[in-house]
Amino acid sequence: MPTAAIIGGGVIGGGWAARFLLNGWDVRVFDPDPEAQRKIGEVLDNARRSLPGLYERALPVEGALSFHEKMSEAVAGAVWIQESVPERLELKQKVYQTLQEHCDAGAVLGSSTSGFKPSELQGCATRPEQIVVCHPFNPVYLLPLVEVVMTGANDNADQVADILRGIGMHPLVLKKEIDAHIADRFLEAVWREALWLIKDGIATTQEIDDAIRYGFGIRWAQMGLFETYRVAGGEAGMKHFIAQFGPALEWPWTKLMDVPELTDDLVNAIADQSDAQSGAYSIRELERIRDKNLVAMMRALKAQDWGAGALIRAHEANLQRFEPKPLPSERTGPVETVRRVVPLDWVDYNGHMNEARYLQAFGDATDRFMEIIGCDATYIALGGSYFTAETHIRHIDEVHAGHEITIVTQVLLGEGKKMHLWHEMYEDERLLATGEHMLIHVSLETRRASAPSEAVAEKLSGYARSHVALPRPHGAGRAVGVK
Amino acid sequence: MPTAAIIGGGVIGGGWAARFLLNGWDVRVFDPDPEAQRKIGEVLDNARRSLPGLYERALPVEGALSFHEKMSEAVAGAVWIQESVPERLELKQKVYQTLQEHCDAGAVLGSSTSGFKPSELQGCATRPEQIVVCHPFNPVYLLPLVEVVMTGANDNADQVADILRGIGMHPLVLKKEIDAHIADRFLEAVWREALWLIKDGIATTQEIDDAIRYGFGIRWAQMGLFETYRVAGGEAGMKHFIAQFGPALEWPWTKLMDVPELTDDLVNAIADQSDAQSGAYSIRELERIRDKNLVAMMRALKAQDWGAGALIRAHEANLQRFEPKPLPSERTGPVETVRRVVPLDWVDYNGHMNEARYLQAFGDATDRFMEIIGCDATYIALGGSYFTAETHIRHIDEVHAGHEITIVTQVLLGEGKKMHLWHEMYEDERLLATGEHMLIHVSLETRRASAPSEAVAEKLSGYARSHVALPRPHGAGRAVGVK
Repeated sequence: MPTAAIIGGGVIGGGWAARFLLNGWDVRVFDPDPEAQRKIGEVLDNARRSLPGLYERALPVEGALSFHEKMSEAVAGAVWIQESVPERLELKQKVYQTLQEHCDAGAVLGSSTSGFKPSELQGCATRPEQIVVCHPFNPVYLLPLVEVVMTGANDNADQVADILRGIGMHPLVLKKEIDAHIADRFLEAVWREALWLIKDGIATTQEIDDAIRYGFGIRWAQMGLFETYRVAGGEAGMKHFIAQFGPALEWPWTKLMDVPELTDDLVNAIADQSDAQSGAYSIRELERIRDKNLVAMMRALKAQDWGAGALIRAHEANLQRFEPKPLPSERTGPVETVRRVVPLDWVDYNGHMNEARYLQAFGDATDRFMEIIGCDATYIALGGSYFTAETHIRHIDEVHAGHEITIVTQVLLGEGKKMHLWHEMYEDERLLATGEHMLIHVSLETRRASAPSEAVAEKLSGYARSHVALPRPHGAGRAVGVK
Repeated sequence: MPTAAIIGGGVIGGGWAARFLLNGWDVRVFDPDPEAQRKIGEVLDNARRSLPGLYERALPVEGALSFHEKMSEAVAGAVWIQESVPERLELKQKVYQTLQEHCDAGAVLGSSTSGFKPSELQGCATRPEQIVVCHPFNPVYLLPLVEVVMTGANDNADQVADILRGIGMHPLVLKKEIDAHIADRFLEAVWREALWLIKDGIATTQEIDDAIRYGFGIRWAQMGLFETYRVAGGEAGMKHFIAQFGPALEWPWTKLMDVPELTDDLVNAIADQSDAQSGAYSIRELERIRDKNLVAMMRALKAQDWGAGALIRAHEANLQRFEPKPLPSERTGPVETVRRVVPLDWVDYNGHMNEARYLQAFGDATDRFMEIIGCDATYIALGGSYFTAETHIRHIDEVHAGHEITIVTQVLLGEGKKMHLWHEMYEDERLLATGEHMLIHVSLETRRASAPSEAVAEKLSGYARSHVALPRPHGAGRAVGVK
């Protein structure tokens, strides 16, 4: 495998090291910091637990990592050399001089700088054509963006883009060099506004973060600025949107800013570029794509109980919980354990709810039934839980996003460590699927079978005794393919 | 149920209508636009397909929607009145005068304005204390943020916040009124920078959007600005971060901007607020939370094949696909159909891979096997596919995030419309689970069973004939609870 040299460890250098290693490259690190090995090790730990799982297939076998005391040793034969030393121009130029004495003339020499232009870095270099700004974003092992900035001296544009794509990154090649590249100009603009808001006592850091992550932040995570506004502008198009939005730029609160004049040329350039970018979709299609993305991301955050997802959880907790039916005093029929709408992100390429989501919904029904018999979050925190040992699902009919499903649950057996449940999933009166599940009570410490608490055992056997009077469900006890 | 009145339909008014309706409120709309009913109907369609599925339980029964020709009729008895008329101050003031003649004195009168301060709206109102800026973000039915801005005249702060939370929104209450509130100041700042970048030919709209959504956009979707920088600053804390980052504000490219001086007071205020916001977590914990959020959101986008998720798909497609083993000429053993790492977001409250993710992985194995026998994306686009009719999973052992799993697949029967598969999931040599699945070939048009193409049938029966020589897998043909 090819070799990458990392000059300067730390969070950014360590992130680059992880990107290369986990994509199969050998990585050599040069960093005089005695803590470099520990620091890079910590970044690598984070990368190993997060990056490979993004993929539905295995990444290449991890490359070899080595630490070197001499820069010459680290860069000899390397195909890519990434410099992430502190932001001092003289230091960077000195580093390039040393390493160009030892590296291959065909190697890429990428700089992580956010503050310098490539012409500055190339200034007094032996081979300026090797040096290119490759500015990544933290965490480098997860975020794909790399701003690539070159000058007329460079001749390695294709090589740079190919290698970056090969390690899963997105090379965003700037047409001209410019101070702070692109993204950091936006970050600085927002940072300046944020400083004013805090200084003037309008909002706290928390409130500013909430203003971002509960609103435009999650919108930008999928479409960015212009495509979002294209949707907002509606069928009337980007020109109309700018006509509406542009005048705001002349409001008093922009008095301190230099604002470009919205000439016809500029408006046309924006509208044309927006057509090239998003014109393949109608506004209606873009709305639906946006909403599906938002739902998928908000549900992802909900599973993590964070940000906008934590808000949904809080709202949900306040919605009146439907009663388990029938009420405890009349436990004779199956218990309603789920009533919900099929989310947009549960649908697969066949246009219906994906098979795994049937089990997710049955799993939720099981969780709810556990809660009803007292095996709730508090109980689980104390070290007891039920694990599913076996599942049998019969898919009887299809269901689509936006439709309400209910699940009713019958206890087939509740005795000792065993809980044998039967779930039926309906849309109105239409049976969609059945789920038969054998669960075993476990100790979360030993991860082995153990007896439930007396209170749980008693509630469970109460249901079991009353449900034994119910008719044996059609399909229970069946093996796959047996009618 | 309480009633909300929507004054001014369109995308924003329609979004408010959807929020209230889907949370059980009755909604009355006043909008002189003859197209209002159609426009709100379209927003409602979008809301109905996306909002309820965010929740794991049913929302209240949808309220009643009605359209009214008289403002007086729409607002009489309403608990909340939301004004979303065009951004002209005289028009808004006139609307308030009319509706305050007819509405309850205790009703909330919210304005969706992004451009006016509450003191301006309250200017010549009969009861200024009712009027409050409630500025939402598009799509209003999904994004939770509402900027709430009041003056000393208001006495309805608790009422406003309670009602907004009740419909799943997040009231962000500004400490003082300020032009453009908070979020739009950030949006304007970025918009101005973006105009310059396009005007100067540095980047196109597409490149600007990519610079946002592949980098800081997805970071901001979960943590916002300050918490993100807190993590970047590391254990040294926010003060250290500002010391590093602050000087950049004095670079030449900020020459046109007025930048607040980073006095000790301002730096301390930021550091203290950041401690109050995020101090409950160590930096290491925040890093791991951030990464888990990013992985969950990027995987959500991957399922939608959009944004950063589409990049991961493209990278994945270029990773060398492991060969199905054994090769076609020597089809005697089970076929390797999945080799992947367990993602961070597949783990549940028990600390191991969630039961539904076992079926997701088995589903992927089935998809891969379908591909191997020629039932691939092209075939499916032509109208044929296999649907799972029945599944039997035996959970034998636990597995955790970051670990590699493989699945091997054996054909138990491949005949006519039926495909009976046996999957075994391993971590190295350790058997984690078995999956037995009966699939039926269907026509995607009729959604009924149909014969596969000859080519698919032939490949499948080839595997079936060679696999019949393999030992019958231990556990095949079992019913739940039978040993």
